[in-house]
Amino acid sequence: MEGVASEAASLAGHLQLGKLIYLYDDNNISIEGSTEIAFTEDRGKRFEAYGWQVLYVADGQDVAAIDRAISEAQSDARPSLIVVRTVIGYGLPTRAGTAKAHGEPPGDTELNGAKEALGWPLEPRFYIPDEVLAFYRQAVDEGAAREAEWQTRFDAYRAAHPDLAAELARRMAGELPTGWDKGLPDFPADIKGTATRNSSGKVLNALAARLPELFGGSADLAPSTKTWIDNDPSFDLDHTGRNVHFGVREHAMGAIVNGLAYYGGFVPFGATFLVFSDYMRPAIRLAALSHLGSISVFTHDSIGVGEDGPTHQPIEHLAALRAIPNLLVLRPADANETREAWIAAIAHRDRPSALALTRQSLPTLDRSVMASADGLRRGAYVLADLGQGRPEIILMASGSEVSLIVEAGQRLAEHHSVRLVSFPSWELFEEQDEAYRAEVLPPEITRRVAVEAGVAQGWRRWVGDAGRVLALDHFGASAPAETVFEQLGLTAGHVFATAEALLNDRA
Amino acid sequence: MEGVASEAASLAGHLQLGKLIYLYDDNNISIEGSTEIAFTEDRGKRFEAYGWQVLYVADGQDVAAIDRAISEAQSDARPSLIVVRTVIGYGLPTRAGTAKAHGEPPGDTELNGAKEALGWPLEPRFYIPDEVLAFYRQAVDEGAAREAEWQTRFDAYRAAHPDLAAELARRMAGELPTGWDKGLPDFPADIKGTATRNSSGKVLNALAARLPELFGGSADLAPSTKTWIDNDPSFDLDHTGRNVHFGVREHAMGAIVNGLAYYGGFVPFGATFLVFSDYMRPAIRLAALSHLGSISVFTHDSIGVGEDGPTHQPIEHLAALRAIPNLLVLRPADANETREAWIAAIAHRDRPSALALTRQSLPTLDRSVMASADGLRRGAYVLADLGQGRPEIILMASGSEVSLIVEAGQRLAEHHSVRLVSFPSWELFEEQDEAYRAEVLPPEITRRVAVEAGVAQGWRRWVGDAGRVLALDHFGASAPAETVFEQLGLTAGHVFATAEALLNDRA
Repeated sequence: MEGVASEAASLAGHLQLGKLIYLYDDNNISIEGSTEIAFTEDRGKRFEAYGWQVLYVADGQDVAAIDRAISEAQSDARPSLIVVRTVIGYGLPTRAGTAKAHGEPPGDTELNGAKEALGWPLEPRFYIPDEVLAFYRQAVDEGAAREAEWQTRFDAYRAAHPDLAAELARRMAGELPTGWDKGLPDFPADIKGTATRNSSGKVLNALAARLPELFGGSADLAPSTKTWIDNDPSFDLDHTGRNVHFGVREHAMGAIVNGLAYYGGFVPFGATFLVFSDYMRPAIRLAALSHLGSISVFTHDSIGVGEDGPTHQPIEHLAALRAIPNLLVLRPADANETREAWIAAIAHRDRPSALALTRQSLPTLDRSVMASADGLRRGAYVLADLGQGRPEIILMASGSEVSLIVEAGQRLAEHHSVRLVSFPSWELFEEQDEAYRAEVLPPEITRRVAVEAGVAQGWRRWVGDAGRVLALDHFGASAPAETVFEQLGLTAGHVFATAEALLNDRA
Repeated sequence: MEGVASEAASLAGHLQLGKLIYLYDDNNISIEGSTEIAFTEDRGKRFEAYGWQVLYVADGQDVAAIDRAISEAQSDARPSLIVVRTVIGYGLPTRAGTAKAHGEPPGDTELNGAKEALGWPLEPRFYIPDEVLAFYRQAVDEGAAREAEWQTRFDAYRAAHPDLAAELARRMAGELPTGWDKGLPDFPADIKGTATRNSSGKVLNALAARLPELFGGSADLAPSTKTWIDNDPSFDLDHTGRNVHFGVREHAMGAIVNGLAYYGGFVPFGATFLVFSDYMRPAIRLAALSHLGSISVFTHDSIGVGEDGPTHQPIEHLAALRAIPNLLVLRPADANETREAWIAAIAHRDRPSALALTRQSLPTLDRSVMASADGLRRGAYVLADLGQGRPEIILMASGSEVSLIVEAGQRLAEHHSVRLVSFPSWELFEEQDEAYRAEVLPPEITRRVAVEAGVAQGWRRWVGDAGRVLALDHFGASAPAETVFEQLGLTAGHVFATAEALLNDRA
């Protein structure tokens, strides 16, 4: 019934993933009662429409019939759905075939009744018949034999193809090749700059050349998310390319990327607009919970989307993603931070990452006067201290708003000393030691302004009681990006005025 | 392709919503190119499997054929899908039928080429042929005539059935009946108490008796969410009952609830576990953006879920919902606050609400010594000031953690003066005037502890730099609820120790 299952099955049918076999435990029961109350579609016909082979087993107790169906499924080039009619709570005297067997423990009477019907002893309570134990124990020897056979074949393969075997072993171990993060694009300072989605596309392609395990695609937005791996085919029926067309199926994309990460041998990514991260949240959460290195590339990350308007302008999404434990949220400020964000995402193979990237152009900061972009690896870092002496005020921002604090800071520096902090990742900053955090945000500097084109939620932690947060606690508007930023008060001028008021307040 | 579309179509087929007609603009193009790259399923067959009538129009320019198909769809008892083969960017000389016609403006050359092919003048640029204008203008007279006809019929209906007509007019105007919020259950103080999901079930049923427009259901969790309207049938093929079996389709549930709210005449609700709110976020966001009074009932709202473990224990969900602008998040502390939460949700007909309710029992607070539960309407309120004189410390919490601060506060009050604040809704509190906010949280009382079984994100705003937040910035664990609370440090003892340390720190 869940939509993600439809999305995934449709794509599996399209790609003819013939090794995929679903055993559908068709017990006719859901928590609210019979599935007849909500789910009367012809499930087999639906899967046929997806391009699946559909097989039926009339009696879920008929193990031989299930075995025959699995063999038939294996011999077919299509993915297969085996619809197995079963009875939930099989054997329970009154609860078999009812919703109670799903949602509630059976209790002694029902359990004993089932055991009596099967001719089993009532004690021990957790009883395993000897023949069942013996049957399952066969798997130990059989497994050992199969592993030995596989090892023999792999040893022969290694002898014949030592490089390929070593590469396979490396990938399956999840180890990155030496120097993978060296020689990536270094972007020169540029006032006009480029969108971070564009820089991301360049970095992704440089990485793809070094990391054959980099594999992924977009939910029908590759031209917009700039996530196409050049000179590499689509992942199509021949299953060789690295560019996946996930279709307009964000939730399945997230789940498939997780599946690739679980399987191993891949550094998998999926891409869409940040506002559509909502569709993928269950998958992102599972990646975070399961320590999977799934990478999400989220472009069009603010009101900078412009004319598409509030439905397409993320407002609450950065906060909502940061709320997920163990997820790394990375919102780079310019082209070079974008390179560093990709490095961080790939380096963290035991947790998921989400990159938030712009549609609109951002200046590429002049790193000869600003600190190196690799400060991103520590979550937040001092871009520059402007003016003389100890900073009187700290301006901090993430992503596209960093260029606003730079411009405002330069104006303020005519009369004040100003610290500029680029803050691309809360999680990485939280994970630094207290000494580093206090170095970047000295507790005694309480005049602080944070700027972000999203809800203020959570920024109070970084600006403190005396600080100010310039944010958007409401939905956006439809107009050219510059107009929206201007109308909603996210301009260098407004940052300057806010900071100046704060300086004068307690001068 | 989107999963929510599959969920909704499956349910529409099940319910045989025969008035539903989809015109499927089958232009074979998505943003990444031909739909052949990702979407080759047999769409018509899929909809047949859902129980829909499926019709085909071979040429989207053939208006007569479309008209015939619509008539055929109207005459059938099933919902209908009309698959209309079209050409995207019809008439554009080189972009017709290509992905560029979807994602990019056509530009002058293409536009002029299309106009020339149609024999249209190049200027004015936005050109409406006279015959098109005349055709559309017919709708003005026709619409006026139809409205007049409807009004005549409704006047006759009103004359024959004045009460029913008045009731219909009331409902469609979105007005609530006088006294709807009076005489609802008042729960006596009770140490053992009950789960707020149970109190919610009682309040919902009391409201359902007063509000015939209250209509909704659960995504296959009604026995757990306690959202069944007693003595009312299921919404089934006869379309009369008020209890909807949405099936395991959370996203479609959210979308359908929004549709009911848009249509008018309903106070619609949908229910599931809080952790599954992730599935519904796109729909909740649209409700917030569109000022729809959709109500979400989210039970099992914390690690109190217990044995089901981290996959089912919401951690980031309260923060993630609070991040959505215009959404009212209500997390009542006991049975009486649950009544007030329902009142607030229903009273706000121009914005969505989300109720966060427990699976586990909570004490029903003794309102003879605590303030009235209707303080919930202001978001946060002083439950009690314990001890003598001006409070030295404020303990605040939402939902199930309020009973922890009450117990800890009572112990602290042996030696200190303590303010207890119940904080069920950030949004409602933010919307109070500054005087009220300062009355509840006086700026000079800087010793503050906030307690919530979820991520700390955002609480810093309420406790200030000097305060402490007892929260969960990591996933939960699988064990009985009491054990999980104990192991993760969310106990009255830990609240007491934290508060005492804060008092001693600066004593």
